[in-house]
Amino acid sequence: MIRVILLGSGNVAFHLEKAFKQKKNIELIQRYRRDGKNDDLFDPSIPKTIYLNELKKADVYIIAISDDHISNFSEQLKFKEGLVVHTSGSVPINQLKCTAHKGVFYPLQTFSKDKIMDFTSIPICLETEFSKDMILLKTLADTISDHVYKIDSSQREKLHIAAVFANNFSNHMFKIAKDICDNNHVSFDLLAPLIFNTVNNLKFIDPTDAQTGPAKRNDQKVIQKHLHQLKGDQKELYALISKSIIKYYQKD
Amino acid sequence: MIRVILLGSGNVAFHLEKAFKQKKNIELIQRYRRDGKNDDLFDPSIPKTIYLNELKKADVYIIAISDDHISNFSEQLKFKEGLVVHTSGSVPINQLKCTAHKGVFYPLQTFSKDKIMDFTSIPICLETEFSKDMILLKTLADTISDHVYKIDSSQREKLHIAAVFANNFSNHMFKIAKDICDNNHVSFDLLAPLIFNTVNNLKFIDPTDAQTGPAKRNDQKVIQKHLHQLKGDQKELYALISKSIIKYYQKD
Repeated sequence: MIRVILLGSGNVAFHLEKAFKQKKNIELIQRYRRDGKNDDLFDPSIPKTIYLNELKKADVYIIAISDDHISNFSEQLKFKEGLVVHTSGSVPINQLKCTAHKGVFYPLQTFSKDKIMDFTSIPICLETEFSKDMILLKTLADTISDHVYKIDSSQREKLHIAAVFANNFSNHMFKIAKDICDNNHVSFDLLAPLIFNTVNNLKFIDPTDAQTGPAKRNDQKVIQKHLHQLKGDQKELYALISKSIIKYYQKD
Repeated sequence: MIRVILLGSGNVAFHLEKAFKQKKNIELIQRYRRDGKNDDLFDPSIPKTIYLNELKKADVYIIAISDDHISNFSEQLKFKEGLVVHTSGSVPINQLKCTAHKGVFYPLQTFSKDKIMDFTSIPICLETEFSKDMILLKTLADTISDHVYKIDSSQREKLHIAAVFANNFSNHMFKIAKDICDNNHVSFDLLAPLIFNTVNNLKFIDPTDAQTGPAKRNDQKVIQKHLHQLKGDQKELYALISKSIIKYYQKD
């Protein structure tokens, strides 16, 4: 039985609580949070506290708070036993300033409280200072996910940058596409099959090979015609992304 | 029974032939192509020709050739009866220079000969000069797709630009993410659930509301840290796309 304490009241804490509490070999013994703001969203049967000196003894303490506060917050954890992990993609392990052993337990997914997540398909990236701690953390992660990876701080930072491109930036492309549709009284639904096809292709084809369109063909006639109809951000982005695509495929 | 002649031997012609030939109310009476290069990929039972003066009489002539050649090619079609349509997203209807009635039959999808497509889910955008022709073209489109839209040349051009963002540019974001993973010996598979989640969200949430990440939060600490680790195209793109995201969400 692994005794776990969650520290936080945000989206990650919310989903971790849900994932852990169904598991037989995990005991969620306590949740710490700064205040009771989101308490109604959490399981009332799990003991909670707003005082760090009331923290119980656990095997793993999971800090699920915003990146900026991890370092300062961890400094207040004065106990020496147990393993303290954070859940951030962009904070190195050495930003943890606690006295206990340190680790990282980073679920690579965007969480929203409105949406139930199937944790088994979410990759969890682990890092520890000591191999014994890795065994414990891996046991914990394996109980909720089928995709557990050992990733060091430097790799995790790169992975986070890659995730910004794959997730945030692609979403911004969808947002611009929707804006263009809305402004021209065309339903964004028309683009849905195209988008699903693009993403479905990733299962079978390297995105490098899946590229199509005017920039891939370096079709300046179409590119210039499109640029002529765009302005502001959309025009700048169209020009720069097309330039980047052309450069990649001209190289080959 | 609608008699159809396909003109072309590329991906669109290939998939249209497959979609049409199963339909009872459509008769594919002939296929024209410049040369016999791809003939082995097409149905041998459908008569074919390389001579335009051998074209039979049809209700609809579907030009499925590359955008650049549509105008010149259509000029060679000297008959007056029937409806001549092209299948391009970026060519206005008035670029058809044939003597017969003109129209557009634009399936909004990226086609590859390697992949079987379910045409019923592919949106088809139609345009004609005359409402009678629209009835015919809609009947034709309805037999193969459940998503048929009337879209004029100006809307179609904007839709094509939106599709470049939604499809080509988002794919480039995936490509860059994969490059970053590859260069840091991290599996691109780690990002798959995140990507599928982002796209799945589009079914329920406007991409404007679905945005997350450092740029959305205008988290300059993370943004600068990421920029510091990037160079070249990737750095330029990260900076410009982040700037654009920040601008959108600061406005609200």
